[in-house]
Amino acid sequence: MRYSKLFTKTLKEAPSDEIAKNAQLLIRAGFIHKEMAGVYVFLPLGKRVLDKISQIVREEMNEIGGQEVQMTVLQPKELWEKTDRWDDKKVDNWFKTKLANGTELGVGLTHEEPIVDALSDYINSYKDLPIFVYQIQSKFRNELRAKSGLLRGREFMMKDMYSLAKNQEEHDVLYEKAAKAYTKVYDRLGIGEFTYRTYADGGIFTKRFSDEFQTISPIGEDTIFVDEEKKIAVNKEIMTDENLEKLGLKREDLVEKKGVEVGNIFPLESKYTDALDVYYTDENGQQQSIIMGCYGIGISRLVGMLAEHFADDKGLSWPQSVAPFQVHLVGLCERANDIYEKLIESGIEVFYDDRDVSAGEKFNDADLIGIPNRIVVSDRQEEGKVEFKKRNESESSVLDLNDFITQIKN
Amino acid sequence: MRYSKLFTKTLKEAPSDEIAKNAQLLIRAGFIHKEMAGVYVFLPLGKRVLDKISQIVREEMNEIGGQEVQMTVLQPKELWEKTDRWDDKKVDNWFKTKLANGTELGVGLTHEEPIVDALSDYINSYKDLPIFVYQIQSKFRNELRAKSGLLRGREFMMKDMYSLAKNQEEHDVLYEKAAKAYTKVYDRLGIGEFTYRTYADGGIFTKRFSDEFQTISPIGEDTIFVDEEKKIAVNKEIMTDENLEKLGLKREDLVEKKGVEVGNIFPLESKYTDALDVYYTDENGQQQSIIMGCYGIGISRLVGMLAEHFADDKGLSWPQSVAPFQVHLVGLCERANDIYEKLIESGIEVFYDDRDVSAGEKFNDADLIGIPNRIVVSDRQEEGKVEFKKRNESESSVLDLNDFITQIKN
Repeated sequence: MRYSKLFTKTLKEAPSDEIAKNAQLLIRAGFIHKEMAGVYVFLPLGKRVLDKISQIVREEMNEIGGQEVQMTVLQPKELWEKTDRWDDKKVDNWFKTKLANGTELGVGLTHEEPIVDALSDYINSYKDLPIFVYQIQSKFRNELRAKSGLLRGREFMMKDMYSLAKNQEEHDVLYEKAAKAYTKVYDRLGIGEFTYRTYADGGIFTKRFSDEFQTISPIGEDTIFVDEEKKIAVNKEIMTDENLEKLGLKREDLVEKKGVEVGNIFPLESKYTDALDVYYTDENGQQQSIIMGCYGIGISRLVGMLAEHFADDKGLSWPQSVAPFQVHLVGLCERANDIYEKLIESGIEVFYDDRDVSAGEKFNDADLIGIPNRIVVSDRQEEGKVEFKKRNESESSVLDLNDFITQIKN
Repeated sequence: MRYSKLFTKTLKEAPSDEIAKNAQLLIRAGFIHKEMAGVYVFLPLGKRVLDKISQIVREEMNEIGGQEVQMTVLQPKELWEKTDRWDDKKVDNWFKTKLANGTELGVGLTHEEPIVDALSDYINSYKDLPIFVYQIQSKFRNELRAKSGLLRGREFMMKDMYSLAKNQEEHDVLYEKAAKAYTKVYDRLGIGEFTYRTYADGGIFTKRFSDEFQTISPIGEDTIFVDEEKKIAVNKEIMTDENLEKLGLKREDLVEKKGVEVGNIFPLESKYTDALDVYYTDENGQQQSIIMGCYGIGISRLVGMLAEHFADDKGLSWPQSVAPFQVHLVGLCERANDIYEKLIESGIEVFYDDRDVSAGEKFNDADLIGIPNRIVVSDRQEEGKVEFKKRNESESSVLDLNDFITQIKN
């Protein structure tokens, strides 16, 4: 894409009420627009990052047999009363609305109840299980404060997956499959190395632990204790001797770190399926409870997390797999047009700064936008050569265009 | 995909309160689930159709320079007060909600105001225009009645595009570009032949006509008058002698037809940009109004429309381009497994009925689900042969598998 055609421009300043670093940077670079606190528009560059993260997550969920659906934002009160999650005293961050006839509705904040209800049409016998089902969709949480930019939104994009199993053993298999898929997602996002599966509290209706995926980061808000050798961590909230013993971990092997939560998975036992009266009939004709798990990844939260974690004082610096474009072409002479065409023909996603502005402005914008590979085409290089620099390195080198193409495509 | 792995099954009956034929069929075939009147979950098969339609629309909008964004569902009241579209007496189908602190919010029913507001950060000079921007997202309309299934939802998926131009001439060029892109979309959806650009009322703030795209169909609810030679139509509501003269049409050349609206495009003049105080500076340093257009296609409405329009008494019958799979493989013997693998290897999207049910049930389900190409693999054919039948034809033929693959791939 040509920068001259993109309707966004980099901005000198983010809105003065924006205090989160991720949102400040993303607004200045033209990735998002602030609609209100915790509610952000994704502009073309931001939408591309959002879509790339979604696609990575989608591929890994499909790989383990996940079936994609799209649930509804509008929610009928009756479903949530069955699980006692309607009353504002029980769940304090609903957005609620009303039909024209006065009927109260919820604005989807999660989807356990409607998923179980929708699946109930299709679950009768043991042959109908297990099921892995997921969606990637906006969720709405009426947070009192929303000061963390994309890290904690009132409206945000989430992948939520649900597993339904015949029994605890089958549940455990699905749960571990999902955990492995999460690990693959973080590897592909470029944060695998420093992202830890972290034991956390399982909530009120299970004695099991839940699992958070925590990325070690200076921007982390959670305190976790990491066993670097075992590649396992424990959330501070469950750091008791009893729990450590259960988990086979030793206090002396654990190092305190700051982590950002980039996903979580929960055992739900049969809480929702029982409450909604959804059972299956086993091989012996007996009615049995369905064991459920839920698996969340905040897609828009990851945009904010990756933005803030990898940023430096010059701006954003995206991992290759989620960058809005693979190559940022800074054009300083006519020759850049041909090189742009050649890169496009080679199937490379190129952002071409063809604007009539100074070289300095182009370099500053390239650093702010944070595409991982920058090439400069100017009269200073011979025909067929480009100056190549990675966003996260300071040294540049002069390469044959063809060698550069080969390098990027690998 | 193997049918045995898909969590949905065909159902004998749709819910008794569902009176729309499109929703009845789509529910029975396992494409959607009714959450409440006018609000439907997209199940795996339905999600695939929704995604295919979205992708066709996306490609054609990108082709004319559309830049994709994702606006927010939650809307600040202040923006809509500026255009006098907040008060329920002015716009009677808002869903409204509240922040925890009591601040009223809207639940996005359209996005002219927030689009103009978001773009205002980037529009100063004539060099910043024109702009084509679009999104594909859920919209919410608090309709008193919702009895038409996917044809008129309370929550529905829409592609809405907006153009911003420096003046009327530039607007006209963009408007015609969009109209041509719409024609391409309908061609690709398999309804181009009988879809007419139809002059309609332009609304209260323009003397221009708007354009509806109407598909001639027995399920049509609108009355239109068609000039079949000129491939143009007129909506009944504007059928006056004065208008016909303006449009260069003759009453005697027009034939009355029933149409389903599958898209619409509107000239908005400078109504929203002026109201939101967004102008640009021209070459002479003068402040000028921005001329806007908006362009809608109901993506989920199209799922319902295509379902109902092409259905017969046996079930659905999808056009090739939007079908959830290209081929429905009815497996009646072991050999089907190998053929499934070969089709997958050839890059064909196959839905493989590998279930342990009767041949009759498999044939009925294939007809109900409506994938356009059905092949049967049974012991009745020689090795390497398949029985091929199109969903909308009654005769089948026996083909070499390789010839079938070649045929499908073209």
